[in-house]
Amino acid sequence: MNIIDIINKKRLKQSLTDEEIKYVIENYLSSTIKDYQMSSLLMAILLNGMTDNEIFSMTKYMASSGEILDLSPLGDNVVDKHSTGGVGDKTTLIVAPIVASCGVKVAKMSGRGLGHTGGTIDKLESIPSFNVNLTKDEFINQINDINVAITCQTENIALADKKIYALRDVTGTVESIPLIASSIMSKKIALGAKKLVLDVKVGKGALIKNLDDARQLAKIMIEIGKKNDIEVICILTNMNVPLGNNIGNSLEVAEAIDILKNHKKGHLTNLCIELSSHMVALGLKIDYDEAKKLVLENLENGSSYNKFLELIKYQHGDISKLPTSTHKYKIKTNSEGYINDIDAYKLGILSMHLGAGRVNKEDQIDYSAGIVLNKNINDYLEVGDTIMTIYTNKKIEDLNIDNTIFKISSQKTKKEKLILEILK
Amino acid sequence: MNIIDIINKKRLKQSLTDEEIKYVIENYLSSTIKDYQMSSLLMAILLNGMTDNEIFSMTKYMASSGEILDLSPLGDNVVDKHSTGGVGDKTTLIVAPIVASCGVKVAKMSGRGLGHTGGTIDKLESIPSFNVNLTKDEFINQINDINVAITCQTENIALADKKIYALRDVTGTVESIPLIASSIMSKKIALGAKKLVLDVKVGKGALIKNLDDARQLAKIMIEIGKKNDIEVICILTNMNVPLGNNIGNSLEVAEAIDILKNHKKGHLTNLCIELSSHMVALGLKIDYDEAKKLVLENLENGSSYNKFLELIKYQHGDISKLPTSTHKYKIKTNSEGYINDIDAYKLGILSMHLGAGRVNKEDQIDYSAGIVLNKNINDYLEVGDTIMTIYTNKKIEDLNIDNTIFKISSQKTKKEKLILEILK
Repeated sequence: MNIIDIINKKRLKQSLTDEEIKYVIENYLSSTIKDYQMSSLLMAILLNGMTDNEIFSMTKYMASSGEILDLSPLGDNVVDKHSTGGVGDKTTLIVAPIVASCGVKVAKMSGRGLGHTGGTIDKLESIPSFNVNLTKDEFINQINDINVAITCQTENIALADKKIYALRDVTGTVESIPLIASSIMSKKIALGAKKLVLDVKVGKGALIKNLDDARQLAKIMIEIGKKNDIEVICILTNMNVPLGNNIGNSLEVAEAIDILKNHKKGHLTNLCIELSSHMVALGLKIDYDEAKKLVLENLENGSSYNKFLELIKYQHGDISKLPTSTHKYKIKTNSEGYINDIDAYKLGILSMHLGAGRVNKEDQIDYSAGIVLNKNINDYLEVGDTIMTIYTNKKIEDLNIDNTIFKISSQKTKKEKLILEILK
Repeated sequence: MNIIDIINKKRLKQSLTDEEIKYVIENYLSSTIKDYQMSSLLMAILLNGMTDNEIFSMTKYMASSGEILDLSPLGDNVVDKHSTGGVGDKTTLIVAPIVASCGVKVAKMSGRGLGHTGGTIDKLESIPSFNVNLTKDEFINQINDINVAITCQTENIALADKKIYALRDVTGTVESIPLIASSIMSKKIALGAKKLVLDVKVGKGALIKNLDDARQLAKIMIEIGKKNDIEVICILTNMNVPLGNNIGNSLEVAEAIDILKNHKKGHLTNLCIELSSHMVALGLKIDYDEAKKLVLENLENGSSYNKFLELIKYQHGDISKLPTSTHKYKIKTNSEGYINDIDAYKLGILSMHLGAGRVNKEDQIDYSAGIVLNKNINDYLEVGDTIMTIYTNKKIEDLNIDNTIFKISSQKTKKEKLILEILK
């Protein structure tokens, strides 16, 4: 077996065998297969596709390339969630305590952000003294105790996926359904998930641009789940709708608190209720309507917010001291009309430059920096209205504010659905 | 401009602009673009193709990435030839003196072999004291003097092509018509060719497997020629037919001498006459029939062989001392019937292992090693007949002779055409 023959097979649109995929994953991890050979194969996979069996093999060998967590001491009432990612996506901060307050165990390992997207761990680290580095025992004990724990993903989970993902990022081979599906599911298998709610983002700013592709991705992830004894529900959600108003680490924590206090309605709240209801239904083995009723009750009666406070306290955080930035600039509009579109990607890039994100892996984050949208889709603007507020420790003169983030028109835009489809 | 955006464009089957291709070639040569990014782009090009304009740009920037030779001091009666390569292809050794003997100037820069294919320079170096390292002045002066010189290709010709070619070799991205066309033509432009005969090999053992692809390759090379003021004739030739009987450096020189002495008829002789006639027609601006008459005359009256002796002498070679190997093993057949097929690729691999070729760039060649086919296609074999003779300095016990090189059947196979098509 050699890598050139394997590349040639995929180039000619032939299926790779289980042994061939094993050979690729193992030898790439050991660097016998070089980066330049792997990227050539990844592009061939992206353009020529993979059969379901190839995707199953790829997922299996990536999952087994690192440590496999055993969550069985927690019993079968444990639910995981995952989102394919987006700007301002703070759903984990909100959903985890809601679901835990309903009596379901949430064992959540999260990552850090890179580029224009934020990471849950960075958001939690903006809370002074919050401990994101739980040992395995601490993690398990805390969940047994209060139903929820959120910690940094162990370094040695799905090592081959980690190496391949880093390569895809710099070789234009990210947007492949087989590669996205096997990457997500290999991590989830290794993290010991048995019940999983996946939030698949669809839209301009997302990895997946259209509903057909999202459906295809969801279906194959559900199939991978079946093969690996994981119950998977996929919620296809619209990424053209901004998720709430705040972008940036401590600003997103503040927005999460507002929603958990039941003070804020809108798209983000609705999405969190939807995700939570499916997780609760899975965990408690009850139907969706019953689960949703429980979720709404716990949001209203304060149990969810209390669970959030319990989580923060257990991991030694202090939300009374969320960091704030020295500068606060109001960005005003000079046109009038309805906001038809907000470019989430450009907001993410701006937020990164304000200090809220990392350009390179080793960059330090400014936890206080970020953006608050003062207006949202279909709000009416008069000249001089504040459209967004910028929080940063940098000087406004050093910032380059993109003028094309908001699209304004004399007419309202048609209302977009948030939840597009649910597959299981 | 950045490489990820460029890879993404090609991935989405969009055309790259001239500026984008310039950016890729220049930044890959300077290593700003990494091997793993280039190989991903090369696979996208292989699978999604390139427009003629993209191929023109690619060729142009690869040609200008190194030194450009100026052959104008030789006038306009200079013809170059190139073959897309094959096992036992010693046509240059034969064609160059024939064409020079007809009064046409042949300025030939050749390369060394790697893997199962041989290189003209290695073959010439098997002639004791033959100088393959002419300076530019020596090269020009010799051609002005005796019409022909064959030397090692200057190191700094088409540097980007050299780097890209080495990468394609190890990433399964060799078999792409746009990449093959731009690679060949960029070198020819840099080598100063203005009139060019291309021998495009078609068949199982060749890079190009079928006639349609060969036509497409020929057409685009002719178009690149037009763009660059080079008159190109493409001769599509059948690679399923072995080119002569000898494989291995000094053995191929010996076979070339036999043909130049007009002692040997067959496929190889016919191909050399065909290539020579087109080169003479181009060089002297006469028609093909007239050129062919001249070629046949010069082969018969000894002028071509004398030109060969003149060339060898001018470059200090001594053909009276061709090296011979210590061992000579006769391989006998144990089946009877007609030879229906000879696997040229496997012969090439065997010859390499005998010592005639390099596994790695730095390997030393055994110039005396190689294979002589005692029988060829449609010859009848009786049990015990010698089918080939192996020349080597290694012991037969250390050799692994592939039993599947010859296909033998009770019936003759249909005669294959050598010259498939001529395009100009």
